[in-house]
Parts: sequence; structure tokens; C-alpha cells
Amino acid sequence: MNWLEEIAWNEQGLVPAIAFEKHTKKILTLAWMNHESLSATVDEGRTVYWSRSRNKLWRKGEESGHVQKVDEIRLDCDSDAIVIIVEQIGGIACHTGRAHCFYKKLVNGKWVETEDVLRDPKEIYS
Amino acid sequence: MNWLEEIAWNEQGLVPAIAFEKHTKKILTLAWMNHESLSATVDEGRTVYWSRSRNKLWRKGEESGHVQKVDEIRLDCDSDAIVIIVEQIGGIACHTGRAHCFYKKLVNGKWVETEDVLRDPKEIYS
Repeated sequence: MNWLEEIAWNEQGLVPAIAFEKHTKKILTLAWMNHESLSATVDEGRTVYWSRSRNKLWRKGEESGHVQKVDEIRLDCDSDAIVIIVEQIGGIACHTGRAHCFYKKLVNGKWVETEDVLRDPKEIYS
Repeated sequence: MNWLEEIAWNEQGLVPAIAFEKHTKKILTLAWMNHESLSATVDEGRTVYWSRSRNKLWRKGEESGHVQKVDEIRLDCDSDAIVIIVEQIGGIACHTGRAHCFYKKLVNGKWVETEDVLRDPKEIYS
């Protein structure tokens, strides 16, 4: 059986993929992949996601330059979630200019923004 | 607005929740939460997931004793994914007896099992 067929794709043909930074040991993003984007990720050695909002392949860093170079790909016990261990080029994974996307922290019943904005998104996407 | 209402629940009323171990800095599991299970997680200080297969609340560790004590809860930029930073009691998060669930590694087009089984599941669930 092909390794792609061993994945328990959901009813939309997607699987959640967690990008984890090898050196900083931080969770960067959770995005989604389909058959085609995961194949491209392996072939190109960089993360390629499936954008559910734009309904097309999304080569992470295609505009920002913040490419995620793939080091390792892991599948979980029930084959319905993936971890991609990456090197995050530029040290910025989030479109808000932060190192990672999980910057809202629950404090006393409120989401509080943490994590420095390392670069102004206007600069990143200009 | 209530903090729970700020979450972009999917069409099934669920959000993916990544459990991340504070001390080992490892991704343990990806599971799903609904409104009720995330509320319970906050109230009880331990992860409570929504089991999609059993269609009920799943207090992680209820059978195994491998409870995940909650240290921090994070939400991502577009509010549709959660990271829960936890202390994993017993050092085992996976029902296979491994420290975490992401033990299948892609090597030359094959999923190869890695990570030691720390305790026989027959012992854990007896």
C-alpha cells in the first residue's frame, strides 16, 4: 500500500498538519493538507498546504519568503494527524509577523495577545 | 464576548486541540474539543476531549491514569486551532503505551514505527 493511502483523510480529503520547529521546539502552525499538497511537500522538501479559504495549494512562504524546510514527517497512531518537523526560514511562521500562530493565551477568561511581532506584516507582504 | 464564542468552531462544533508537553517540549496528541469539553478542561485543569468515535466526552486518563494537567491554553491567529500546554502524568500519552502518538516516521516512502513502548497497553488498560 502506498504511504499516502495509509492516511485516514477526512471526508473532505484533508488531514491536519502541525508544523513544529526543530531548533526552537515550538509549535508554529496548524494547517491542512490534501493528497496533492502532502505529495508536493515530500517532493519539494518544503511545506505545501491546502488552503481551505482559497481552495488551492498554498506553498508556505510563497509571498513572504518564510518557507518551512522539511526535516521529518510523522503520522499519529490512528493515522489522522501529521506533524512536520521543519526549519522555519526567517523565524516567522505567522502572517501577523510573529514567530508562530499560537499567540493568544487564555488568562482569567480572556484571550490575551502574547509574543512579539518580529516584523510588520505590511513589510512582509509588500 | 465570551472567550468560548471567539473560537471558530468547525461545522461539527469542534476545534482541533494539540497537547504539548511543557517539560519534554514534545507534541503528544491531536484530539478534538467541543464547547463542553473545552469548558470542562478549563474548569477541571485537565484535558477533556470530545471523542468523535464514541460521541461523548473523554476525560484523558480516565482509564489509564495518564491525565494531562493543564498549564496553558493557546489559540491561533485565525482562532480555529488550540494548543494546550500540559504536564503528562505517567509520561505516556498514547494508547499504544508510547510517550506520544506521532511515532510513525516517513522514511523512503514508508511509515516506520519509532519511539519505545514504555508500558504494555494490556497492563495500562487492565
